[in-house]
Amino acid sequence: MTATTAVAPLRIGVIGVGRIGRMHAELIAHQVPGAALGAVYDAYEPAARGVATELRVAAAATLEEIFDSDLDAVAICSSSDTHVDLLIAAAEASKAVFCEKPVSLDLGELDRALGAIDAAGVPFQIGFNRRFDPAHASVRDAVVSGVVGDPHLVRISSRDPAPPPLDYVKSSGGLFLDMMIHDFDMARFVTGSEVVEVFARGAVRVEPSFAQVGDVDTALVTLVHADGCLTAIDNSRRAAYGYDQRVEVFGSEGMAVSANPRAHTGAVMTADGERRPAHPYFFLERYLPSYVREWQAFVEAVKTGTAPPVSTGDARAPLVIGLAARRSLREGRPVRVEEEVQPA
Amino acid sequence: MTATTAVAPLRIGVIGVGRIGRMHAELIAHQVPGAALGAVYDAYEPAARGVATELRVAAAATLEEIFDSDLDAVAICSSSDTHVDLLIAAAEASKAVFCEKPVSLDLGELDRALGAIDAAGVPFQIGFNRRFDPAHASVRDAVVSGVVGDPHLVRISSRDPAPPPLDYVKSSGGLFLDMMIHDFDMARFVTGSEVVEVFARGAVRVEPSFAQVGDVDTALVTLVHADGCLTAIDNSRRAAYGYDQRVEVFGSEGMAVSANPRAHTGAVMTADGERRPAHPYFFLERYLPSYVREWQAFVEAVKTGTAPPVSTGDARAPLVIGLAARRSLREGRPVRVEEEVQPA
Amino acid sequence: MTATTAVAPLRIGVIGVGRIGRMHAELIAHQVPGAALGAVYDAYEPAARGVATELRVAAAATLEEIFDSDLDAVAICSSSDTHVDLLIAAAEASKAVFCEKPVSLDLGELDRALGAIDAAGVPFQIGFNRRFDPAHASVRDAVVSGVVGDPHLVRISSRDPAPPPLDYVKSSGGLFLDMMIHDFDMARFVTGSEVVEVFARGAVRVEPSFAQVGDVDTALVTLVHADGCLTAIDNSRRAAYGYDQRVEVFGSEGMAVSANPRAHTGAVMTADGERRPAHPYFFLERYLPSYVREWQAFVEAVKTGTAPPVSTGDARAPLVIGLAARRSLREGRPVRVEEEVQPA
Amino acid sequence: MTATTAVAPLRIGVIGVGRIGRMHAELIAHQVPGAALGAVYDAYEPAARGVATELRVAAAATLEEIFDSDLDAVAICSSSDTHVDLLIAAAEASKAVFCEKPVSLDLGELDRALGAIDAAGVPFQIGFNRRFDPAHASVRDAVVSGVVGDPHLVRISSRDPAPPPLDYVKSSGGLFLDMMIHDFDMARFVTGSEVVEVFARGAVRVEPSFAQVGDVDTALVTLVHADGCLTAIDNSRRAAYGYDQRVEVFGSEGMAVSANPRAHTGAVMTADGERRPAHPYFFLERYLPSYVREWQAFVEAVKTGTAPPVSTGDARAPLVIGLAARRSLREGRPVRVEEEVQPA
Repeated sequence: MTATTAVAPLRIGVIGVGRIGRMHAELIAHQVPGAALGAVYDAYEPAARGVATELRVAAAATLEEIFDSDLDAVAICSSSDTHVDLLIAAAEASKAVFCEKPVSLDLGELDRALGAIDAAGVPFQIGFNRRFDPAHASVRDAVVSGVVGDPHLVRISSRDPAPPPLDYVKSSGGLFLDMMIHDFDMARFVTGSEVVEVFARGAVRVEPSFAQVGDVDTALVTLVHADGCLTAIDNSRRAAYGYDQRVEVFGSEGMAVSANPRAHTGAVMTADGERRPAHPYFFLERYLPSYVREWQAFVEAVKTGTAPPVSTGDARAPLVIGLAARRSLREGRPVRVEEEVQPA
Repeated sequence: MTATTAVAPLRIGVIGVGRIGRMHAELIAHQVPGAALGAVYDAYEPAARGVATELRVAAAATLEEIFDSDLDAVAICSSSDTHVDLLIAAAEASKAVFCEKPVSLDLGELDRALGAIDAAGVPFQIGFNRRFDPAHASVRDAVVSGVVGDPHLVRISSRDPAPPPLDYVKSSGGLFLDMMIHDFDMARFVTGSEVVEVFARGAVRVEPSFAQVGDVDTALVTLVHADGCLTAIDNSRRAAYGYDQRVEVFGSEGMAVSANPRAHTGAVMTADGERRPAHPYFFLERYLPSYVREWQAFVEAVKTGTAPPVSTGDARAPLVIGLAARRSLREGRPVRVEEEVQPA
Repeated sequence: MTATTAVAPLRIGVIGVGRIGRMHAELIAHQVPGAALGAVYDAYEPAARGVATELRVAAAATLEEIFDSDLDAVAICSSSDTHVDLLIAAAEASKAVFCEKPVSLDLGELDRALGAIDAAGVPFQIGFNRRFDPAHASVRDAVVSGVVGDPHLVRISSRDPAPPPLDYVKSSGGLFLDMMIHDFDMARFVTGSEVVEVFARGAVRVEPSFAQVGDVDTALVTLVHADGCLTAIDNSRRAAYGYDQRVEVFGSEGMAVSANPRAHTGAVMTADGERRPAHPYFFLERYLPSYVREWQAFVEAVKTGTAPPVSTGDARAPLVIGLAARRSLREGRPVRVEEEVQPA
Repeated sequence: MTATTAVAPLRIGVIGVGRIGRMHAELIAHQVPGAALGAVYDAYEPAARGVATELRVAAAATLEEIFDSDLDAVAICSSSDTHVDLLIAAAEASKAVFCEKPVSLDLGELDRALGAIDAAGVPFQIGFNRRFDPAHASVRDAVVSGVVGDPHLVRISSRDPAPPPLDYVKSSGGLFLDMMIHDFDMARFVTGSEVVEVFARGAVRVEPSFAQVGDVDTALVTLVHADGCLTAIDNSRRAAYGYDQRVEVFGSEGMAVSANPRAHTGAVMTADGERRPAHPYFFLERYLPSYVREWQAFVEAVKTGTAPPVSTGDARAPLVIGLAARRSLREGRPVRVEEEVQPA
C-alpha cells in the first residue's frame, strides 16, 4: 500500500565499519528519522560482528549479501581504494549510494565510477558533510538569500589538532587531496561559483617526516572563481589550540562568517583577563550535527525521488582543484583548473 | 565473577515515558556507556509499548514487573504526584533510584520518601540535570579550584521560551517550585553554601490567567547564604528570544560565568550591524549534554559504590527554599529558611 | 547679532579642579564643540593656577570672580559638602549650572538647592554621566523604541576595581549613596519608570575596616518600579578583574544589554584555551566618551534653550532611593520609597 | 640645566594641516605628554592660520620659518609628492622627523630621501600607525613572547567603508601602494620576518571607473616570508558594514588575533536573534589610540636618544613589496621581492 510504503524506513547497509563507518552506522540506527540500519559489512569480519551485535543488526559475511539484499541503499565507508569498485557494484545493484570522500584520487577512475552511477540512474551522495554544518550552511544561506550580495572575497581556515600518521599521508594523496579537498568543496558551496585557477604555496613546518613523501603540512592557496570571486584557504596539520574550522564570505552587501564553537560557554575573569575553553577536539565532536543532517538530506532525497544535494559533479570538482593545487605547488605558478581536466 | 560483574551494564528500568521519561529511556539505551535499558513502564500502557518497540526492550505491564525484576536501578519519570510512593517502593525493592524532580511539593511527604531511601541504603540521585551542564559545571569548578576566591555575589537568570499551560501551573507548585527550584539548586551548587534567607518579589506580566491560581510569571529573588554570599535569581515564563539560562559567580579573586549557547556559530554583518542566531529553543536541546552526563555520573556512582553526586540533601533543600520564597512573596518580607523546616 | 551669538562658544567656569574637575576642564577646553573654558577656581589656589596655566585660561582667585563674571555657565566639581551653597550662589548669579553628583546627602538641603535652581529658572544638569555612555544609552534606546517591549526585569552590576579610602567612606554616605546611586539613576533611566520599593542586603567582604563606619562593601538590592518592573542591582567595592559595569533590560519582546568593553580586541588561543584582556581600569578610561557626550548635551540644551536631559528630578530621586536602601539594610525589611520623602 | 632640559617638552612643527595633519597637530597639542605643538605650516596659508588660531600656536608663513626655527622636530603631513624634498630639508636642518607614509612611490626617490636621513643621523619615524594599535600590538607581543610559537600562517583583512575618489587613485599608486602597504608593513611587523615573494590577484568589483586607471578595488595576496611563514592579505575598497581591520598569526604553539572593535558594546536580543552595532566608521575613529601611542613612541625615542621604532628600513620594505605585488598582478605570476630592488 502506498501509505505504508511512504512511512517505511529507508533500509541502509553500511560497508566498512572503521571509525567513520561505525559512526555512520550508529547514526543511521538511532538518530536519523526515516532510516533504518539494515546490515553492516567489513572486510575484517570481527569488526562487522562487533558493530552488528551492538546495534542489533545482521553482519553480512560477504559483499554479495549486501548487494543482493533488499536493502534500499548502501553507505560506502571502506578504505578509499575500494570506493570505485564498490560504487560500480552498488550502481549495478540499483542501490541508492552514499559514499565517503574521496571516490578516487585518480580522475579517470573517478569518472569511471561516476559514469556507472549516471548510467544506472541511482541516487548518489558524496560525503562532504561540512555543507550540513549549521554555521557553515548559514554562510551559504546568506549568499543565496542575497544578504551579503555578490561574493568578492572568501576566507577559509581548516586546521587539524594533530597530524595523521606518515603511513596515511603516503596513500592519501597528501594535504591537498585528503584535507584541503573539504575546503575546495566549501569554496564552491558558499560562493556557488566554479573554480578556474589555483595558486598554492606550502611548507613542512609541523612534521618533518612528511617531506620524505613529498607532502606539506602547512599551505596557503588562492582560488579564482568563474565569477571573479577570490578565495584564500589555509590549512595546517596541527593547531595547538584544537580543531579550527572557519568560513567567511565577504560580498558587495556584507559578510557572513562561521566561527568555531567552544567546548562550552563558560568563562573565567581574573586580574589576568578572561579565559575561555578551547574548541571541541576533533571532527567527530565538531561535526556531529552535520553528519546527522547529511543523512537526513540523503534519506529525504531518496524517499522523495529528488536529487541528493551533493552529487556527482560535487564529487569530481574538488578532486580537479586538488590536482591543480598539487601541480601549482610543484611548478611554482598559478594553474588553470582546465589543465587538469581529462578528456571525457 | 567480579570481573564479569564489573563490565556488565547497569540495567535500568524507566517508569513513565512521557516527554522526559522517553528521553531518559533513549539516552540509557543508546548514549550512556555502561548502562542498558532493561524495561519501560507507563500507566498508559500503549505509551510504554510504543517506546519499548522502538528501543527494543520489554514493556512491563505492571509496576511489580519492574520492582520484582532483576533490574539494577529504576528511573522515576512519571507524574510528580506518584514520586513518593514509587520511591518508597523502589527503596523497599532495593533498587538504585534516579528520580526526576520534584520528589514532592510537601515537605513531610518528601521527608517520608527520603527517609525510606536512607533506611534502605539504596543509591539515590535527584534529577537536577543542570549541574551536569558543561558550562554551569565550569562555574562550579572555578569556585572549587579557588580561582574566583570566596563567592560574594551570584547572578542566575532562567527564562523559558513560553509559559506552560494553566493546568500545569495549578498542580506544579507554581513558579518557585516548578521552575526556580532549579535555580535554588544551582545557587547551592555553585557556591557550596546553604541558603538561610529568601526575599521574593513577583508579578504577572506574561500570562494574566496565572493570577487566577495565585501564581506569578515573573520573579526576582534575593538569597542570603550561610557564608554571607548574596544571590539574585530572576525568572520569566517567556523570553521572546528563546530559552535563557545564565549563571555567574563573583568572588574575591574573579568571576566565573556560564553564557547561553547559540543555535549555531554563524553571523552576518551588514550596514545594519551584526546578526547572530537566537538560542536553541528549549531545554531538551539546550541541556541534552547535561542529561547524558547526569546518567554517566549515576551509573558510575552505582557501579563503584560511591554516593551519587546529587542526593537526598540536594533533593530537600531547594524545596525548603522554594516554600520560603512563596511565603516571602505572600507576606512581603524576607523569610528565614528555618521557618519552613518541619520538625523531623 | 543673532548669527554671531549663535556661534559664540558657551563660556564655562569650572569650580573645583581635583581629579574629576580637572577632567571636566580639559574636556571643555579641548573636546566639546561649542564650549570654551572661561576660568577655573579651586579653594586650594595653587591647584587652580596649575590647571589654568596648562589649559591657558584665567585662574579665579575668589568665587566672586566666577559668579560676577560674564561666564555663561559653571561646573560645580568641588567637594560634595559645598554643592548646595554653590548651587544657590550660581542660581542667584543666573548661571547655567552643571553639578557633579551628589547635590547633597540630606534631602532637605537638596530640596533647598534645587528650589533655588527652580526659582531662578536657570538650566541645571546633574552629573549622571553613565546615561551618556553609548552602550548604556543603546539599552535605553531599545526600550524607548519598543524593540524590547515592556520592561519586566532589569539587571545592573557595578563593581569597582578597588575600594576607596576609609576616610572617603566616612563622609560619602556609604555604598548606597556614593556608588549605587549611579545604578539607581540607571534603573530609572533605562526603564523610564519610578522606583516605589527597595529591599537591600549587604555585607562587608572586601575591606573589614568599613564595618567600623557602619558601611558595607558588597550589596544586592531589589527595586520595584511603579510599572511593576523588578530590578536587581549588585555592587562590589573590588572586582579583581577590573571595573565591571553592565546593564540589562529584559522585556516582553526581547532584551537589551550593555556589556563591558575590553582594554583591546586582541586574543590569544593556545592549548589552554582563549585569553582575552581585562577591562579598562577605572571610570575615567571606561566612561570618557560619556563625559564628552554629557557636555555636548549640556551645551546643546543651554544654547537652544531646551531643558537639560538630566535635571532636578533626576538629581533628587536617586538620593531618595539610596536613603530607602540604607533604611532597608538597617531595618531588614523592604522599604517604600515614599517613607523617605520629606514634606515639601 | 640638565634637569630643566629633561622636562622641557619636545617642540614639534607640523607641515601640512589637511585632515591627517590637523589631527596630528591636535594630538601633539593636547594628548601627547612631553610634546608641544610649536608651529604649523600649510602651503594653503588660510588652513595653517585656522588651525594655528584654534590650537593657539604660530602659523609659519614659509617653510624656512619651520626649518630655521628652534623646533626640535617636524611632522611631514603634506601631500605625498612633497615628502622627499621635505625629508631632505628636515634632515639638513637637523630636525627629528616624523613622516606620514609614503615617503615616495618611487624607490630611487625614497632611497634618496632615506639616504639624507641616514647621512644627517636625525631620528626618523614613518607613520605606520597601525603598529601602535593596542590589539594589533598584542598580536606582535604574542609572537615576540613566544606564546604562539613560530609563525606559520598569517591572515590580514583590510577593508575600507567606501572607495576613495578616482582622482586620488590616479596618483596614489593604486590599491597595493596606498592601502595594502599598511598590511605589508603589518605582515613584517607581526611575524618579524622579511617578505621574499608575492603573488597577487585582484579585480574591479566595487567601482568600475577604477579600471580606467588600471587599478583594482578587490585583491588577495600571498606573501612568502624568509622564515617560511605564509601570509594571506585581502583588501576591499568597500565593506558595506564599515571599516574592517583584522590580523591573525597562527604559529606552532597557538594563535593570536586582533578583532574589530564595535561602535559600542550594546546588543539586543529578540525572536530574530541578536543584533550588535557595526564597527566605528573609519580610520580616524578606529585608530585614534594608535595615533596617540605613535606620538608617544616618537617623543620617547627622540628624548632618550634611542632609535624610533618604525624607521627607514620599515619605510622602504613595504614599498618594495607593493611594487612586486603590482608586477605580480600585471604578469600573472609570483614575483620575488628581490626583482624589485634597485641597485644602491
